[in-house]
Order: sequence, then structure tokens, then C-alpha cells
Amino acid sequence: MSYPKPLRRLSSLLSRLPGIGEKSATRLALHLLRMPPSVARELGESIASLHNAVIRCSTCFNIADEDPCAVCSDPSRRAELICVVEGPTDIVPIEKSGEYRGRYHVLGGAISPIDGVMPDDLHVKELLDRVARGGIEEVVIATNLTAEGESTASFLAGALRPSGVRLTRIAYGMPVGADLEYADEVTVGRAMKGRREM
Amino acid sequence: MSYPKPLRRLSSLLSRLPGIGEKSATRLALHLLRMPPSVARELGESIASLHNAVIRCSTCFNIADEDPCAVCSDPSRRAELICVVEGPTDIVPIEKSGEYRGRYHVLGGAISPIDGVMPDDLHVKELLDRVARGGIEEVVIATNLTAEGESTASFLAGALRPSGVRLTRIAYGMPVGADLEYADEVTVGRAMKGRREM
Repeated sequence: MSYPKPLRRLSSLLSRLPGIGEKSATRLALHLLRMPPSVARELGESIASLHNAVIRCSTCFNIADEDPCAVCSDPSRRAELICVVEGPTDIVPIEKSGEYRGRYHVLGGAISPIDGVMPDDLHVKELLDRVARGGIEEVVIATNLTAEGESTASFLAGALRPSGVRLTRIAYGMPVGADLEYADEVTVGRAMKGRREM
Repeated sequence: MSYPKPLRRLSSLLSRLPGIGEKSATRLALHLLRMPPSVARELGESIASLHNAVIRCSTCFNIADEDPCAVCSDPSRRAELICVVEGPTDIVPIEKSGEYRGRYHVLGGAISPIDGVMPDDLHVKELLDRVARGGIEEVVIATNLTAEGESTASFLAGALRPSGVRLTRIAYGMPVGADLEYADEVTVGRAMKGRREM
């Protein structure tokens, strides 16, 4: 005996989500079937309409409730400072840090020829246009400190250099609270290179 | 900075699913937003339409691809034998055991006054009707071996007794492969009471 087709189809779709294996996908599908139909319908419609419901700011490309987004339209944030990130989730820890009061630019990923992601697939042109329109003093490149993030940072630095704008990269170093003993040598090496006067 | 409203709404709906906490709900919602819109739409519509797409057998109330279900319409299965279970998932292990070649009756839950589930909320009347129509020799009550499952079994036994049909209950005992040392005393007690000639 196998479960009905619509249930198996849903299980197979659910199992593509991160952290959901085949067994828990079946368990979830059965749970959805036991839920009141109205609740399952609400959840389903919320997923189906997600892409259309979530607005993207036409200036910084962050996901937003309105366009321009709350950060881009906030006069108390420094308009001459742009922080470039790969995705909307990267903005959360930066905002939480309280160390940044400028605006953002969301690339929508990192350059990765192996995955077929080229500069034209990201919001790179829009960043160059933003800088070209003037009024920008500094671009902080905060792409991830991974191979893809680093090549994206180099690429952006090259493309932005001619504009004469100040280009910075977030610092490499030891994470706060980390033990030197357990840190990987590349991080320790970068932390040593980046040492500052006390 | 907080995520846009449609995303937060989806997270809150996802966090009601079993095994999905608040953090993983947000992570899932963001992942869905990163997926191709067509894939997210397919998943969403599959959830939204689930209750309408899954057919229930009008004889045994199991979820099915067609009505009557494959078991009820299989002439090689003993029609005079009905196994009563709480839900469709309970049928899977019974089928896997290979020890049962009769048909089923899915109650849709167990009687639980505390949760407001009374006999009228389950497919109890339909079971009595099935037995009353004749041709049934034995009803195996395979509700769970929990407080709710046990009271449901007693209730059904009382309701079916007048029909004169043979009533059986699946056996309590030690799970196969279990260590006596680690078994709970209630299970061991039941296994002792249910001991059989060798």
C-alpha cells in the first residue's frame, strides 16, 4: 500500500526543502492532510503567492514592504554610504551590530562561474549606475568571506575603481569570543595581518 | 530591520508545523523566496489543493487514489474481516507486517472527550452500518495502545457486541528486539499476562 498520488507528489516537493528528508516530508504531508483544510489552504496560498507578495526595493533590491524600502527612504541614514551584500539575510546581522548607518545594495548572490552565476545575473549594473549618478562617497563591500564572495568583491572593486569612490571591504579576523587554540590558521593569519595599534 | 510582512506571515504559518521552530520557519520562508517562483508556486498549490485532491474511500475512509480504494476493491482480500484503525498511517505498518489480508476501517482519530472528540466525530456510525449490512465475521480493533485508543476500543466493543460478530484486539506485549531490562513494567506485565504455549 502506498499513499495517494497527491500526497506523494507533495512529499517529493517538500523533500527538496533544506533540512527536510524523505521521511519527514511524508510526515509533514500527512500532518498537512490532518490539519483543518482552511489552515492548509492558507499556508499553501501564502507559499504560492510569496514571490508576488514580497516587494523588492527598486533602489537597493532588498526585500521590502514598500518601494523604496524603509532604509532607502530613511533621511537619518547616510545616503553617501552604500554597503554591498549578497542577499537580504546578510543585512540582518549588520543592522543588529549597530555599526552601520548607511544604505545597502543587494546583489542577489555572488559571482560563481561554476554555478553559472555571472555579473549580469546580479544587480551589478544597478550598483554601477547608482554610483555613477553621484553623491556616493564610500562603498563597503560586505559580500561573504568565501571564495565566491571574495571574487565578487574583487570584481566590484575593479568595476568601481574608475568612479573614484572610496572602496572598503569588511575586516577579516578572529570572531569575538573565539579561542585562538581552535581557530583555523587562515583566519588567524588574516587576523595577524589585519592587526591594529592599541 | 524586520523582514517584509508576507515573509513574516509565511514564517508564522510554517512554525505551526511539527518539528519546525521559529528560526527554521524563517529560514524555510527565505529559502522559498530564493527558489524559482514556479517551484514555490507548485509547492504552494500542492498544499492548498491537498484536501480536495486526496480522495477518501467511501467504504473504509482510508485516503486513496480512487473510490473504492485499492484494498476495498481487491477481490483477493478477505471481505469478511475488518481491521479498525485510528488513521491512514496506522495501515502502513500492518500492511508491511504481511500478517493481515482483510480490509480496513479508518476511524479518523480516537475518542477523547478532553480534546472534544466524541464518537460522532469519527467514522463509528459507518462502521456499525458496515457490520449491520452483514457478511462480516470478525472485527480486529487496532486502535493505538494508548489511553484514547483503549477507550475507543472499549467503546467499539460495546457498540459492536450486539451484532454477534467476533471482536478481537491486537496483542499487547514486548516489541520484537526489545531488552527486558529496559522495558517498562506495564508492557512487561501485559506480555506476561498474554503469554502463550510454546
